[in-house]
Amino acid sequence: MSRLLIKNAKALVGTHPAGTALLRGADMGVLPTIADAWLLAEDGRIQAFGGMDTWPGITDWNDLEVIDATDRFVLPGWCDPHTHTVFAAPREGEFVDRIRGLSYQEIAARGGGILNSARRLRAMDEDTLFAQARARLEGMMHQGTVAVEIKSGYGLDLESELKMLRVVKRLKEALPLQVKATLLAAHAVPEEFKDRREAYVDLIVDGLIPRVAREGLADFVDAFCETDYFTVAEMARILEAGAAHGLKGKVHVNQFTAIGGIAAAAERGALSVDHLEVLEDADLAALAGTGTIPTLLPSCSFFLRIPYAPARRLLEAGLPVALATDLNPGTTPSGNMNLVLSLACIQLRLLPEEAVNAATLNAAAAMDLATELGSIAPGKRASLLITKPVPSLAYLPYAFGNDHLDTVIIDGKPVRNGEATA
Amino acid sequence: MSRLLIKNAKALVGTHPAGTALLRGADMGVLPTIADAWLLAEDGRIQAFGGMDTWPGITDWNDLEVIDATDRFVLPGWCDPHTHTVFAAPREGEFVDRIRGLSYQEIAARGGGILNSARRLRAMDEDTLFAQARARLEGMMHQGTVAVEIKSGYGLDLESELKMLRVVKRLKEALPLQVKATLLAAHAVPEEFKDRREAYVDLIVDGLIPRVAREGLADFVDAFCETDYFTVAEMARILEAGAAHGLKGKVHVNQFTAIGGIAAAAERGALSVDHLEVLEDADLAALAGTGTIPTLLPSCSFFLRIPYAPARRLLEAGLPVALATDLNPGTTPSGNMNLVLSLACIQLRLLPEEAVNAATLNAAAAMDLATELGSIAPGKRASLLITKPVPSLAYLPYAFGNDHLDTVIIDGKPVRNGEATA
Repeated sequence: MSRLLIKNAKALVGTHPAGTALLRGADMGVLPTIADAWLLAEDGRIQAFGGMDTWPGITDWNDLEVIDATDRFVLPGWCDPHTHTVFAAPREGEFVDRIRGLSYQEIAARGGGILNSARRLRAMDEDTLFAQARARLEGMMHQGTVAVEIKSGYGLDLESELKMLRVVKRLKEALPLQVKATLLAAHAVPEEFKDRREAYVDLIVDGLIPRVAREGLADFVDAFCETDYFTVAEMARILEAGAAHGLKGKVHVNQFTAIGGIAAAAERGALSVDHLEVLEDADLAALAGTGTIPTLLPSCSFFLRIPYAPARRLLEAGLPVALATDLNPGTTPSGNMNLVLSLACIQLRLLPEEAVNAATLNAAAAMDLATELGSIAPGKRASLLITKPVPSLAYLPYAFGNDHLDTVIIDGKPVRNGEATA
Repeated sequence: MSRLLIKNAKALVGTHPAGTALLRGADMGVLPTIADAWLLAEDGRIQAFGGMDTWPGITDWNDLEVIDATDRFVLPGWCDPHTHTVFAAPREGEFVDRIRGLSYQEIAARGGGILNSARRLRAMDEDTLFAQARARLEGMMHQGTVAVEIKSGYGLDLESELKMLRVVKRLKEALPLQVKATLLAAHAVPEEFKDRREAYVDLIVDGLIPRVAREGLADFVDAFCETDYFTVAEMARILEAGAAHGLKGKVHVNQFTAIGGIAAAAERGALSVDHLEVLEDADLAALAGTGTIPTLLPSCSFFLRIPYAPARRLLEAGLPVALATDLNPGTTPSGNMNLVLSLACIQLRLLPEEAVNAATLNAAAAMDLATELGSIAPGKRASLLITKPVPSLAYLPYAFGNDHLDTVIIDGKPVRNGEATA
């Protein structure tokens, strides 16, 4: 048995009652904490915790690792339920072109955009894709991410989409963090289907979804429902096919235009609707009473200088909010959830407690991991962050652009050692 | 003699011709580089450099430290010419109050703002202030900053302003990075002078400036020229008194309103005019042909959600631009120049080359250090950054929120060791 004891923590943060699975509306402002606390993990799971005055003491020190977290907060690790971590190459050239004043249309006409990534990904072998994505994920773990969803969507043909999902499967096996895979064949219509888009949707629905489900290569299915990408009807068809094969939906909707994608996704039991930079009252109404989780991606708004999603309107409507990075080479070249926390407070106007809940428990829920991660509760994975000495929880998002983490623990084992572990 | 050899660098960046002191307008887009290069430093100064094909070879390996920078860029260290690094306490409580919807006026009425920092600073002893600021500066050096300007301005009385500047003097002596001190007594009118502001300006002009100059406690003088803070006439008086005592001006102007501060500062030979979020054509005209350096603080705009300074208009007018963090507990709790580089490209629409020049050579110039720092030139301080392996220079600002630095060298000695030095 391997055991880890964290003692003298300034506070354990996110000690939600066992069974709390998703926070909505005003409940998102409630972030239970236990001050001056200890936590014991056994075999990678949280075994028990409490205030130091309740510490039962340890008589058996065999195989026990002890971390003194004096002056440090202990939080559930960040969950990142929307990324495109597997890709062939960064696209900083397009970034420079945009600064020079080129429009997206001009960049696409020069071979940029999603189809640029698809062209490069198709040409890259699986081992190289794996090695690059692995390095990215290691960086994200260092920044506190303990669970990540990764989408396909740069393959855009049967073989290349399968190649991407095989890479994700290898990442799941190779790394300690939790990885969920999403089939996003409907990311863009590939060149070769330009004039017969229905045939591409047929390929997804009749070819890819059954195959991917059969081979256990994906947990979820996604579609980019947006003007000039995929229609609401096309997304609906994909969601229904996914559901028939046990793949829940997690969809890109309302990034640039509101075309009814949210209602269609919610009606079909989608686990999450992601982006939501453009949100109408009808979209809010469509989400009421459903289990679908609005997932916001403020780093994308930051990088593209598009509006931020109206997070407070979602909360005022009693809805849940989750946060994710959207890491991808075109619109969000950053997988840093700490910066997402700052953006959530500075730009989305979430309170620090709301932002932490959105980046932990609700983010875990948005990838079907709320029974495993996202809060400090007995039996959950001991995937935890220990901060540097900081004066308060609010200091984390406030002092943006700084690295406030000292130690990152996944399943009871430090994957990043800091002063507290030295 | 101590010697450092960097070899096999992917490129040396910022190898401006010797004597280049300040870049203006279109020249800011020129960032000379030498690919596949070596650099030799002796006793903390850049001795020689060139392409690997010009490497003369080393016969004397005594006292020679060698860094292999294969796949890594070597840049001049960041210079940060506008900070308030000495303060008594962070103000994350006000950050939360603002998210809750309180206005600046309401926060000030509750005891917040600059006067909050002043109250706390007056009550704190010099040793504690020093220890806290030292830790902040160590963090900034880790993030690549090799020179920093630090302002007083939370003392707001004779003794407390002197206390702050003594702390800055101790920081200069204790740390390897270059530190410049600025007297910013005119940061806000203190409570006790509320109804006799002219007497406070008298104290600055007749008391503080002569005393600070005599004791060698400051290099520059500053004033917050802004509606409800200090008038143009008051700033002008302070600049003239500073000039009479050998202190050049570096002033806060045009953050919220354009009231003529830029012209008044430029006429009085100010070294820099800082903020400039609100800029009128008359301001641009007033800067033409002067040596005054517009210094932009995009992290402040980011945190306060105020407009970003119109950097491209400044360049189009043929003017120079420098960048700084504005680190302070109220409006910019971040001293990370790497994030400033990203903000400069993403929000100010500077090209990567322009942003690097603005954060190195022009930033050095904005603190009178352009003969010492800011470019790779013989005789300058060997204060250099070695990146992790990255595909291009543009990747640095593009992949925001990531730590791209491997090694930070100040005066020929690593202050942060990475893989290249391991």
